[in-house]
Parts: sequence; structure tokens; C-alpha cells
Amino acid sequence: MIKVGIVGGTGYTGVELLRLLAVHPDVQLTAITSRKEDGLPVADMFPSLRGRVDIAFSSPDKADLKQCDVVFFATPHGVAMAQAPELLAAGVKVVDLAADFRIKDRAVFEKWYKIEHTAPELLDEAVYGLPELNRDAIKGARLIANPGCYPTTMQLGYYPLLKAGLIDAGSLIADCKSGVSGAGRKAEIGTLFSESSDNFKAYGVQGHRHTPETSAQLARYTDQKVGLIFTPHLVPMIRGMHATLYARLTQEIDNAALQALFEEQYKDSEFVDVMPFGSHPETRSTRGSNMLRLALHRPEGTDTVVILVVQDNLVKGASGQAVQCMNLMFGLEESKGLQQIALLP
Amino acid sequence: MIKVGIVGGTGYTGVELLRLLAVHPDVQLTAITSRKEDGLPVADMFPSLRGRVDIAFSSPDKADLKQCDVVFFATPHGVAMAQAPELLAAGVKVVDLAADFRIKDRAVFEKWYKIEHTAPELLDEAVYGLPELNRDAIKGARLIANPGCYPTTMQLGYYPLLKAGLIDAGSLIADCKSGVSGAGRKAEIGTLFSESSDNFKAYGVQGHRHTPETSAQLARYTDQKVGLIFTPHLVPMIRGMHATLYARLTQEIDNAALQALFEEQYKDSEFVDVMPFGSHPETRSTRGSNMLRLALHRPEGTDTVVILVVQDNLVKGASGQAVQCMNLMFGLEESKGLQQIALLP
Amino acid sequence: MIKVGIVGGTGYTGVELLRLLAVHPDVQLTAITSRKEDGLPVADMFPSLRGRVDIAFSSPDKADLKQCDVVFFATPHGVAMAQAPELLAAGVKVVDLAADFRIKDRAVFEKWYKIEHTAPELLDEAVYGLPELNRDAIKGARLIANPGCYPTTMQLGYYPLLKAGLIDAGSLIADCKSGVSGAGRKAEIGTLFSESSDNFKAYGVQGHRHTPETSAQLARYTDQKVGLIFTPHLVPMIRGMHATLYARLTQEIDNAALQALFEEQYKDSEFVDVMPFGSHPETRSTRGSNMLRLALHRPEGTDTVVILVVQDNLVKGASGQAVQCMNLMFGLEESKGLQQIALLP
Amino acid sequence: MIKVGIVGGTGYTGVELLRLLAVHPDVQLTAITSRKEDGLPVADMFPSLRGRVDIAFSSPDKADLKQCDVVFFATPHGVAMAQAPELLAAGVKVVDLAADFRIKDRAVFEKWYKIEHTAPELLDEAVYGLPELNRDAIKGARLIANPGCYPTTMQLGYYPLLKAGLIDAGSLIADCKSGVSGAGRKAEIGTLFSESSDNFKAYGVQGHRHTPETSAQLARYTDQKVGLIFTPHLVPMIRGMHATLYARLTQEIDNAALQALFEEQYKDSEFVDVMPFGSHPETRSTRGSNMLRLALHRPEGTDTVVILVVQDNLVKGASGQAVQCMNLMFGLEESKGLQQIALLP
Repeated sequence: MIKVGIVGGTGYTGVELLRLLAVHPDVQLTAITSRKEDGLPVADMFPSLRGRVDIAFSSPDKADLKQCDVVFFATPHGVAMAQAPELLAAGVKVVDLAADFRIKDRAVFEKWYKIEHTAPELLDEAVYGLPELNRDAIKGARLIANPGCYPTTMQLGYYPLLKAGLIDAGSLIADCKSGVSGAGRKAEIGTLFSESSDNFKAYGVQGHRHTPETSAQLARYTDQKVGLIFTPHLVPMIRGMHATLYARLTQEIDNAALQALFEEQYKDSEFVDVMPFGSHPETRSTRGSNMLRLALHRPEGTDTVVILVVQDNLVKGASGQAVQCMNLMFGLEESKGLQQIALLP
Repeated sequence: MIKVGIVGGTGYTGVELLRLLAVHPDVQLTAITSRKEDGLPVADMFPSLRGRVDIAFSSPDKADLKQCDVVFFATPHGVAMAQAPELLAAGVKVVDLAADFRIKDRAVFEKWYKIEHTAPELLDEAVYGLPELNRDAIKGARLIANPGCYPTTMQLGYYPLLKAGLIDAGSLIADCKSGVSGAGRKAEIGTLFSESSDNFKAYGVQGHRHTPETSAQLARYTDQKVGLIFTPHLVPMIRGMHATLYARLTQEIDNAALQALFEEQYKDSEFVDVMPFGSHPETRSTRGSNMLRLALHRPEGTDTVVILVVQDNLVKGASGQAVQCMNLMFGLEESKGLQQIALLP
Repeated sequence: MIKVGIVGGTGYTGVELLRLLAVHPDVQLTAITSRKEDGLPVADMFPSLRGRVDIAFSSPDKADLKQCDVVFFATPHGVAMAQAPELLAAGVKVVDLAADFRIKDRAVFEKWYKIEHTAPELLDEAVYGLPELNRDAIKGARLIANPGCYPTTMQLGYYPLLKAGLIDAGSLIADCKSGVSGAGRKAEIGTLFSESSDNFKAYGVQGHRHTPETSAQLARYTDQKVGLIFTPHLVPMIRGMHATLYARLTQEIDNAALQALFEEQYKDSEFVDVMPFGSHPETRSTRGSNMLRLALHRPEGTDTVVILVVQDNLVKGASGQAVQCMNLMFGLEESKGLQQIALLP
Repeated sequence: MIKVGIVGGTGYTGVELLRLLAVHPDVQLTAITSRKEDGLPVADMFPSLRGRVDIAFSSPDKADLKQCDVVFFATPHGVAMAQAPELLAAGVKVVDLAADFRIKDRAVFEKWYKIEHTAPELLDEAVYGLPELNRDAIKGARLIANPGCYPTTMQLGYYPLLKAGLIDAGSLIADCKSGVSGAGRKAEIGTLFSESSDNFKAYGVQGHRHTPETSAQLARYTDQKVGLIFTPHLVPMIRGMHATLYARLTQEIDNAALQALFEEQYKDSEFVDVMPFGSHPETRSTRGSNMLRLALHRPEGTDTVVILVVQDNLVKGASGQAVQCMNLMFGLEESKGLQQIALLP
């Protein structure tokens, strides 16, 4: 059994980790920390876990996370970089669901996140936890930077085209839409039911932290300079993310060949579903599951490919992907404990 | 492996059966019928099942349901009564998720459902599939009448008080609220998004078919005449059911004793969660799971008990309960394949 | 033109007052206060008002509210009682949308609201602002206690039956449901979109401040001791309130007579719509309008009347009712500026 | 008083016309037709209108529409082209909210709508009813083709840039999102609450009828060939439309000049609100009102302008715009009867 610790279990990625790990056959939930909720049974905060998860939150100073085999950080950025060095030194593997180790370039990180990086010596070692594009590195990793939710959809959507050199890497447009849970479990007026229900809006159009993460990763994989316009929007639904990705072809290719390119790329990736050409994937087809589904379109009379990508932002976009990485790190089957079928309707 | 057939798999209870049975370790999905969708892969209609369920719908005349060990009817009422006799004769067990065998009194059935009962000889044999109150009978049954969603909440909420003789059985008031999926997957104006979103209303106040089902069952268990006012309402949410049950005490009892009564009653029922006295259960704490949660209240200065009950109408209120019955009928652990934790948020 | 001031315009009842008053032909918006938002144009906080309301918030010490003819308090309780005496002394009329003057009995108020009443000398003078039951008193009032949203539905639903002496006043059960805007515009986790969407729950079942307000008013009107069980629930919709009211008849009366009783009672009240017997009013039929609609039911074989009542909690349940009172206080037509038709769909 | 008739009043644009026209000071609702609902009071179908609209539906053969001054067609396409010629001949003005007269090129119309055009002689005369770009022509028109909802947002968003010759007209990308009411009041599974709530998806990516309408109009205004990729999506909200428009600059221009361009263009259009540069307009800021709001963005380091546009698809995107046209046709103030402030929250 893998002994698992969670730092910061009171947010949505935390409770989602608990939902997944509580039924994972090879996992033993060992510790979950929260400074504020020390002593509170987890199931008192999240009644969905009553009868299924019986541990309580403990304050960080009491929890002995070094006894764990792996620790997940489901915290705001800045926490993992402070605690990871000591855990790693004690032989504990670390998966950070926040952004501390996602951006290799320290200056870029500090510009976008506006804090000093306190563990820059780990930036090189940290492995970007996107199994479909980085599987082998993850298997040998001690420290995983779990990708952001938006970047997961954009990378898996654009990668096959970029790798094949078929599109203009300098003029990508990613129009993305997220459910409200992406904003986290924080008391804020903007995400109140009465503010975000029956409403739709863009946000962060002038610049969003997921742009440099995505551009840099795509550039690494494909050795091209990537120019990306990323426009996030807020959808009145709890879970779900939809990316509408536009790319201009630099050479002609027919639809069948396009489709084959994606099918070939993801044929061994059981969590990426390449739907038939011209499909319209729905976010609900992934609700609660670790699946990411995508489909290709070619608007008539244009040089543009449109890739539609959907996932559950809390599963494949966060906690499910983190468990998928854990499975790889510990030599388990990649899909272990992640077989949940989406809840439809 | 139990070979399972499903009649009528294009509705919400059908796809929910598929979600549950596809991951049930002892089940082999063998046939699923739909006259209209003959030949269509199930996953083409419900993309949530892509990669997980690979059978196709077949028309009823082609499907050899007699090769199954058990057949679920996820159909409108009237279908099971027509087909069950032949299946039973061939040694196939039957679980009807519709109303055909829920009401023992044929005249009452025909009054409320406005069709003639064509298999009245089976009414006596049919076992009401509410495991928490009828477990032993279910174990030996060939034919299960799976309870309605509302009746499940009302019976499990009122039963301990009625059995103990503590309340006035003649003046029960059940104010119940259901998510829209309870209305089924039918093209109707009234349940369009634009009609039922951002809206709340009662319906069927003048009389609803779940009233006689509930009254009769409660009367059977407790040998009392039951007078029940049942008011259903439609909530703008997909899944979830909330019953607010009012009962007048005929003798004084303190809160601790009330609580103990319920805890004792359900101590061996792992799908009934008796929450601490004075809790407010939320429907989302059961979303996608087979749990039913309840909590007791005593409004100050009154002789009334209020019981709050929540469940997912498609799971414990329909398909999950049907699988729970199947488990009992085949000697499996009652909770096998039903360990899903609710999706929160 | 009536010069109007608003204290505390950053909440939902405040912005709703602005929406209504900005198009009221006899009103001139003169001042709106907010300590925190001093100087901010109102339309910067509420973009729905861009181009229609051009005043800015001013801090309370700068705003000269004494120049107004009437001041509305759209504040938490405790504010109006502090400021009303001075305004009244200066000849300004006051409408308090909070609870400070709703409960005549100071001890009861202080028990439920847990603060000391600092203007008890005004409790007698304050007029309860429910025009349909208190029209004449409102016309002559200087100080209005605008009713709570739940109490409005309960009082207008029960009143005709109580006045006629037809029901058991000691065993009223009011099962009520409110949209989330009723919780106000406050940063809280419990009313986040991801917490209250796709969910339904009861709250405050052990006791809610609207119970004593309602009981006391109904008792005043009808000279009976009123016993009321009030169960509020939270519905995943922004606006709307639905009351399902149960009452036991103490004498027989046929449906036509019941219906006539209500139609007669409200025949001169243009904001109360008595729908045909057996109707199911929907909250959306009142969305954005000052209408309250109700319908009567008699469940078969019982001694119980069920009254279904709907309104928009922010209009007839709060700001619309306040404007209705203002119209009466200033000798205007009661419906002036309140002719908005509900937004459906 | 203008005598108004409505053909096809049972859909969402029909009831929205009723909501607006019932409070329009210069309008007398004279006739509303529905073959199916002959004799039914309109308020029985739409309880929001109870007490405010007292006419009944009449079958088309009974209604004497020729007595009207203007007739609105709130019907599916194909109806107005059949009935308009006779009405026009009788001196009745016509406003078609469907597509019959939106596309000047008959062949293009017939290709996209798959029906024969039966009144092609009117195509030249018909005036495209977008007041902000076509005000003078509307004033003198007998026959108005009211624009589609999506085309309204795209045209008003792109027009100033195209007219100024600042962008590459051949590579426009319009990523648009609509509330579900845009799909109409038709019994269909795809727009049931349980199918479209808590979900997001694109549709019609391979081609949508609003593309040729928009391209052709933009080309007419600006004498350029327009290449447009239009991707519609369905948002789980009732009302509201959000367009995220991308355009590549062909020459440099600073943000202040861009902003000035739009402010100048719409300075006399009271229903177009040019928000401050870099704003994120929300659909709810227009809910129930005839306002369209837009804001400009310049993603750093790119040659692209992003224009965000919001409106209520049923008001400015349909019925409100139709009333705005009527006002112009009859010499009234353009905003008469259209002063409703958006419902927020």
C-alpha cells in the first residue's frame, strides 16, 4: 500500500483527491493537513465522504508527512516550494497541484506569480506531469509539477499538429471556457451563485498565468517558438472545461489524414478519446471521470483547423491527473483507481 | 458472472444502470434493447460510455433475453407486465424499475395508472425492492418491483416512527422536491432548460401515483392506516431528491431517544446514513452515489418531528437500488459495485 | 419629485431599489451611501445601470440625507435603528428593509437578533409595510418596517383563512423555498456557485427569525394565538420564493367558497394574483415583477388546505414592496413605477 | 396608437414581444395568431402576463391582420415570405424576426435554409433591421428583416474596424456563446434541462446559417470580401449571448485610438455601450434589456484585437431590436418602450 499525505485538503482539488484515493485499491490515506481545521474529521466538512473517509485534518506541525510515500500539495502556489525540499530529502515523493514547479524559467515564474521562488534548485528536476506527452520522465520522477487545467487541454489539442509541423505556431488562438469550480473554494463575491449563475463572461483577457506555462511546454516539445492568444471564460456550471482551439495550416492535409494523426498520437493513451471527425464533445461526457475528449473540424473555405477539447477540470485537469502521475511513479497501471465513468445526466 | 439484460436503455434509469453495471465486478452486460435504436452502439447515444461499454442496442425481437440471468426493465409502466411472465417461465429473474408490480391492489394500480394489469397473477409474488425494510424477501425473489424515488425517501424516513407507534399515522405531510431528471428523457416543453431553470414550482398537488404506493407500503409494514399528504416539487437541478417529512408525535420522546431509534433501525444498512440530530443534509452529498442520508429535527414548542431525507433520485431512487436488489438476489455482498462516492462539488 | 436616499446600496436589495427607482417617474435619486465605496459611481459596481444611473456612492458622513424626502435602509439590521431617529426628527420619512422595526416586542427582537434595540421608542410608531393587509396605516406612516420575504408569502397565504376562522391556527406548517439571492451579496463559501448549484437543502430548521415576525403579525390581524412550523430551503435559482402552506380546516367548506374567499380578499390588491383553484404557480412568473401569485389546493380525503404562493424575493419580497409603501406614503398610485412584467423565460 | 399584430406568439420571441409591447405607450396589441391555440388567452400559456395582457390567440384565418399598422412575424422561417406580400399590399408594415428576408442573394438563402423562396421580389426592398448601421433605411421601410442574434453581435463588434480598414477582413474568427433560449420553445431532447444544464458544448461548427448573413452584411457595409470562421456554443443559461471576436490588425494603432474609434462610431446609439478599454462585459448586465455592451482588448505581443460583445439574445438579439425598428418606422423616439434596466442579479 502506498501511504499518501495531502497538504491542504479543504479546497476542491483536495476533496477530489480524497474521492479518488479513497477507492484506490493500492492507497492508504495517511495524513491530511489543514492549519485551520486541525482535529476536524474530513467527512464533517465534506458530507459526501461520510462513512468512506474516516481520517481527520491535522495541523501541519503535528502531521508526520515524512512517513508518507508520496505527498500531494493541493494548496495555493508558494506552499509546495517551501515544504518540498525537506520531504524530498526524507525520501518522500511530491506531486504539486499548484504552479510552483510548472515553469522552468524562474524569472517568468516570478513575473507571473509575483512571489520569489524559494526552491529554484528543484526547477530543473521537477517533471511536468502530463502523462500523454511526458510518460517516461514521470515514471522516474521524485517531484511532479501537475499541469494547470487549461494548459492540459491546450497542449493535448495542439501537440500533434505542432509536432507534425502542420500549423503556424506563431498564431494560435485558444478560446477556453471553464466551470466555476476552477476558481476554487474561496469566499468571494464574484463566484457567488447569484453572481455567476445565468451569466457568461470572459476574464483575464489581458494576460493569464496559463499562457506562459502552455507556450513554454509546447515550445519544449516541438522546438518552435509558440505565439498563443488565450482567452478564458467562466461558464455557469460546476465542473467542466471546453477549449476551442484555432490553428492555421501551413500546408494542405485532408481530413482523414488529420484524424489519423490524432488517433495515432493517442492510441496508447486511454484517457484521451479522439472522437469521430466533426463531433461536438460535451463537457458532461467527462463529468467526474479522468477522460479528455477531443474532435477535429475544418471550417469550409478556410485554412484553419478547429480542435474541440473537453475534460473535467477537477479530474483530468487536476486531481485525476495527479493520481495518474502517482500510478506511473509507483509502477502501477496508469489507470488504476481512475475507472470512474462520467455522470450523465 | 451474472449475465444482465436491460430492456429500454435509452432513458435516464437505463444509462444509469449502464454506468453502474459496467464497473460491477460480477456482471456481464449481455443485451440492451431499444426498438428505435436497433444497431446503434450505446456509446454513440451516451458519449460518457465511450471506451467503457461496447455493446449496441438491439431490437426486442432480436435480443435473446432468455439467455440472461436477470433482466432489468428501465421502461415506462406497462412493458414489464407484458414481458415478465415469459422471462420468469424461462428461469430469468426480473427487476422492474417502473410501477407495474409496486402496488399489490390491482384496482388501485389500474385507477392510478389508467391501464389494465395484464399479469395480475404475479402481483402477489412480486417483492417490493426496498432492501432496508424488505431484505430477506428480496434475497429469495424472482420478480422485484423496484420502488419509486419519492416513496423510497418517504418510507425510510417515516418507518422507524411508525413502527415504534410514536406518531399520528393519519396526518403525515411529505413535502418533497426532485431534480428534473426525475421527469425522464422525453422531449417535452415543460422540462426544457429555458422552462425549468431558474424556476421552482409544485406539481401534481391534487394527486400523485407515489401517494398510494407509499401509503400502502407503510401500512403493510406497520399495520396502521396511513393518511399521507404528498406534495412534489421540481427543483432546477439535474439529480437529487429532498423530502421534508412532518409527523405529529402522539407521545413525548426526547431527542436522544429519537435519534437512537433511527440509528438502531439502520445500523446494518450501509446505504442509509443517519446524520447527527439537527443536521441539514444536502442532495449533493449523495450525487452519483447510492447513499440516502437523513436527519431529525424537533421545532421548538411543537409536537412535530421533521425528518429531512436526501438521495440521488437516479441511484438510490432508481438504478442503484435495482443493483442493490440484484446483489441480494444473487447472494452477493449488498454493496458490490455500489461504492461510488458522491461527486462534490 | 420625491428626493430619495438609499443607505447601503451595495447589496441586492440596494441594486434592486436602484433598478426600480431609476425608472420611477416621480422619483429623483439624490444620495446613496456606502462607507467602503465612497466616490465610486454606482454603475461601476453594477454595470446593468450604466447609462441609466449616474450618481456615485458617498460615505455616510458626506451624504446629506436630511435633504431627502424619504430614505431607504438596504442595510443589515442594526443600522436603521441607529440613524432613523435623527432623520425622522428632520422630517424625513424612513423605510427600513431590514428587521429593526418588524417585531413590536423588544424582548423578542433582541432574543432573535442578538443585539440591543437602540430606538425602542419607535417600535410602536413603526408601521408594518405589507400594503395588502395594512394599507391605511402605511399611508399615514413616517417609519415603515418593510416585511421579510418569507413573512410576506406566509401572511398573504394564511390571512384569509385565519380571518375567516376556518383553520386551526395552532398547527400551521409552512414549507418554504428561496432563491439564493435571499442570502445577500456577501462573500461566503456556502453560497458559492459550486456549493449551491445543482443542490437543494433545508436550513435553519431549528429556528428562523422570520417565524416570530410572521406569527406575531398573523396573531395581530386575527386575534388568535398562532402556532407555526416554518422550514426554509435553498433553491439553486437566483430569484424566486415559493411557499407551500398547510393548514387544517376546522369546518367544512367547499372549493368554490374557498376560492371566493381569497378572490374577495384581494380583489383590490393589484399585486396579488389569485390563480384558478388547483393551479401550480411558478416562481418565474414573477421574476423581476412586483406580483405575488397564489393558488389553492385540497388534497383528496384530508382536512387540509394547501396554499401555494410565489413571488420574486427581491421585488415583492423586498425592494418592490418598499417602493409600493413609498407610493402609498406620498399619496401616489400604489403601482406607480412597478409595472414591470416578469421576465419569462 | 399603433395597432400591432403578432403572427406566431407561442415561442420565446413572441412572448418577449408581448412583454415589451404591453408596456409600450404608443402600442395597442390588436391580434396574435396561433393555429394550435385558437381561443386560448395568451396569459394562460404565459402566466407572467396575467393581468397585463388580456387578448387571446386566434387562428390565422380568423385574425384580421390587415387592420393592423404593423405585423411582427415571430415564426420559423418560411411563414413571413408567404404572408408578407398580401399584408404589404394592404398597407401593413411587416417586421420578420425570422430569416426570410435577411439574405439578399436568393441562391445563398435557399442553400442554407433548404426551402424555395416564394417572395423573391421582396428581397431587394427588404431592409436589414440593424438600426446602429442602417438607421435611415429603416425609417423609410415597409418590410424589415430583423437580424439574427449572433449576427447582431458580430456586426456591431467588427464594423468599426472593418470600416476603418484596420483589420484583415479575410481571417475573422468569431467564437460565440448563446443561452439556451436561442434554441426556441420546442420539445426536443437536446435542450432539456437534464441535457443542457451543467454542460457546455459547441454546435454547428461545420457551418451555421448566421455565417453567410454576417459575412454578406459586413461586406456590403465595407466593400470588402469577408472571411469569417464562426463557432457557436451553448451555455447553460436561459438568456444571454457573448461574442469573443478576433481580428488581425493590418496596421499599428494604439489602444486609445482604437477605443476612440468605437466610441465615435456609437456615440449616437443609445443601445450600444462601449465600455472602458480592457473591461470584461457580462451577459447578465444586459438581461432583459435592449442594451448591447462591448469592450476592446489587445493581447500583449500580438497583432490581434479581441472584441468582447454581450447582449440579451431575446431582446437586442431579437424582439427588442424589432421594437426598436418599429419605433423608427413610425417616427417615434428610437428607445420608446425599451427603457427596461437589466435584471441583476
